[in-house]
Amino acid sequence: MMRRIVRMAFRPEAVDAFLQIFEESKDKIRAFPGCLHLELWRDHSRPEVCFTYSLWTGPEALEAYRHSDLFRKTWARTKVLFAERPQAWSLELVQAPEGHPVIFGAAAPGLEAVLARHAPGRVAVLVDDHTEQYCYPKVRAALPDDHLLIRIPHGEQHKNLDTCRYIWTQMLEARLDRQALLVNLGGGVVGDMGGFCAATWKRGIRFVQVPTTLLAQVDASTGGKLGIDFEGVKNIIGAFADPLAVLVDTDFLATLPFAELRSGFAEVIKHALIADADQWKMLRRIEDLRTADWPQIVPRSLAVKRRIVAADPYERGLRKALNFGHTIGHALESAAMQTDQSLLHGEAIAIGMVCESWLSAQKVGLPPEELEQITAFIRQIFGYHPLNNLAKADLLALMHNDKKNEGDRINFSLLPRIGEVRVNQTASEADIRASLDYYESAMQRGSG
Amino acid sequence: MMRRIVRMAFRPEAVDAFLQIFEESKDKIRAFPGCLHLELWRDHSRPEVCFTYSLWTGPEALEAYRHSDLFRKTWARTKVLFAERPQAWSLELVQAPEGHPVIFGAAAPGLEAVLARHAPGRVAVLVDDHTEQYCYPKVRAALPDDHLLIRIPHGEQHKNLDTCRYIWTQMLEARLDRQALLVNLGGGVVGDMGGFCAATWKRGIRFVQVPTTLLAQVDASTGGKLGIDFEGVKNIIGAFADPLAVLVDTDFLATLPFAELRSGFAEVIKHALIADADQWKMLRRIEDLRTADWPQIVPRSLAVKRRIVAADPYERGLRKALNFGHTIGHALESAAMQTDQSLLHGEAIAIGMVCESWLSAQKVGLPPEELEQITAFIRQIFGYHPLNNLAKADLLALMHNDKKNEGDRINFSLLPRIGEVRVNQTASEADIRASLDYYESAMQRGSG
Repeated sequence: MMRRIVRMAFRPEAVDAFLQIFEESKDKIRAFPGCLHLELWRDHSRPEVCFTYSLWTGPEALEAYRHSDLFRKTWARTKVLFAERPQAWSLELVQAPEGHPVIFGAAAPGLEAVLARHAPGRVAVLVDDHTEQYCYPKVRAALPDDHLLIRIPHGEQHKNLDTCRYIWTQMLEARLDRQALLVNLGGGVVGDMGGFCAATWKRGIRFVQVPTTLLAQVDASTGGKLGIDFEGVKNIIGAFADPLAVLVDTDFLATLPFAELRSGFAEVIKHALIADADQWKMLRRIEDLRTADWPQIVPRSLAVKRRIVAADPYERGLRKALNFGHTIGHALESAAMQTDQSLLHGEAIAIGMVCESWLSAQKVGLPPEELEQITAFIRQIFGYHPLNNLAKADLLALMHNDKKNEGDRINFSLLPRIGEVRVNQTASEADIRASLDYYESAMQRGSG
Repeated sequence: MMRRIVRMAFRPEAVDAFLQIFEESKDKIRAFPGCLHLELWRDHSRPEVCFTYSLWTGPEALEAYRHSDLFRKTWARTKVLFAERPQAWSLELVQAPEGHPVIFGAAAPGLEAVLARHAPGRVAVLVDDHTEQYCYPKVRAALPDDHLLIRIPHGEQHKNLDTCRYIWTQMLEARLDRQALLVNLGGGVVGDMGGFCAATWKRGIRFVQVPTTLLAQVDASTGGKLGIDFEGVKNIIGAFADPLAVLVDTDFLATLPFAELRSGFAEVIKHALIADADQWKMLRRIEDLRTADWPQIVPRSLAVKRRIVAADPYERGLRKALNFGHTIGHALESAAMQTDQSLLHGEAIAIGMVCESWLSAQKVGLPPEELEQITAFIRQIFGYHPLNNLAKADLLALMHNDKKNEGDRINFSLLPRIGEVRVNQTASEADIRASLDYYESAMQRGSG
């Protein structure tokens, strides 16, 4: 994306003529291919000085416009009005605010500070039966005495419209107004669904995410994606909205069953593989997840997600980088749901990362020793999950259903080397089958 | 709001030092009172030239920052790195895009043009049983042959979560993906609910509003407010999202029952009273609504709404101007729902405008002859609706429930003269009762 600023100082009597030209041409410029935005500004102390501010998809689009008839004609009429030589700059964004703060450390003082700073109306807290028991006592002292506690049962099967209806009804009975604030204390289900209910209550009240699972801390709590499942389809109803703050307290991870901790760790591995080769080196030294140095690992993993989301808040392209391991992983997860084979999200993604690393070696030159490193580490952490019937499922049909695909193309994000990712790659059905065979044989070889 | 741009050309070897200074100070600047936004840009062709771009609540906030210790210290460290004298400008916005186009005229060619330009995937059309019969035949030829038709029953009582569930189920069964586009062909219920379903389907697909009632054409289709009723509370679940386009075809108004046309006309009167004294003069000449010059009246009325919404897209303050007549009008409407007295939205707002014009005369100096003009015109168009039990209802409690109030204060937007509005006015319960008495006596006097 490219920003363009043009500073134009007019003869005082000519300003109105310029404003007229702008008025006549603004819609045509905005409709020019590659023009994303156009504004007109005026100098506060010298009103005869105007600035145009425009956004373009890239330097090529801007060049095409500057060579167009539209520009030539508009500029010819404009430049006769100048009192000084115009100045123009093409600019690239270096740094912009990252949406919402992430506060690392103990959740209670963090929450207290957020509530004190934003002085909300009534505070509501959404918990599930697990987080009510294990996490709520740790933050209770930071909450106003009159807070509203909303309890839902835990588990993805409750991430649906009926539970939303229950949450909204609680909000209605408590007469929550637009000054209210919702604290979502839990994993991805609580964060996604609570965020959606907050984003749609009176067209949006503020909310704070307090993720309590590893998956939610490094992944789900960031990116503004909120939603619920509908008729068995994951996250198909939802919205984009940013929380006021995300509080990441790694002490909560001690409350997790091991399988859930390990499942979240798959995303930690993914973030390192696509964008942080140094973190990958550190992860490889972990021997037991239960004693891993989470206060070091989590912020660094989350930073990868935040960097990518900041560059692509509405999922227009770059975010596809985060799909590494997920094209095949999601299909396996869906296939497992249709059989009686149990497969956690992270377990499916771990298999997907092995397969897609193999595809990376075939398609974009991932070095064989790095493929071997990835395979060995995932085998060490996740063990071997025999695919059995999963590999026989119509995985391609499942991949076609993925909402990230456009038309018939199946999209992969692959690794040219550890720490880098290349989006918009494709693979044939034969390639995909071969990658599953690689997983089976590599895991059996390792465990043999 | 004030924009500030500072252009800084550094010695090439000093750029990294500046980037470090920016990194250290950016969060402090963003937290400075009155700072709304801060970005760092870099010149595409001269990377040693950096720009800061910041937004401030106003010139005072910017001045306070420029006299702060924070600025003094940061600037002292920065200016020793310059290769050229820095340039800085404070800028005011003159013109920015208005969100979405409104296309006046026949709906079919307008829709054809929108669909051709945006090349969507599957097109879905939401209708109710009325618009299916009277409006859909007029646009059908503009739709792709394979369009999906979603039918719902008409009426506010269906603007709820159950109907959303039905709409989402239809979308799911048709496998609508993110490239799909929904055309909402109907009044406020179809537009608000269809827009909400589109805004939440896969976290947002594009939608086009084709309002078919007067109320929807001049009011509901603009402003980005989408939503549904829940447990009897109006519009309490919803979202903000802009349509791709709004197509305003006043020929549809001929399909409306007279009472509905007249109800929508209350908002036309309101827009004229708060912001368009010339339109008010034209409206006063109308003798029969059925033969009014809608192609002239509607665009001008809608323009008032668009100007106010553009200045306050998220309803932070200025939009309150649109509440004229609605504080008392909404309370009467709610009171009528609790009795068996039938009162359309516009009828309630018409009464509210008479009452609030009387309050305007008491509180902000609306001239007596203008109060009389307003009262007489509303009497002519709407006749006398005896308040009966409505005036005895606990109207103050109903006004307190309005989601636009903050805390205990009841907010009015009143007219200092026709064509102007002043927000954030208050009135006592006695004043409000007296304004209802004024309505009763003025209407009886006129009809006697």
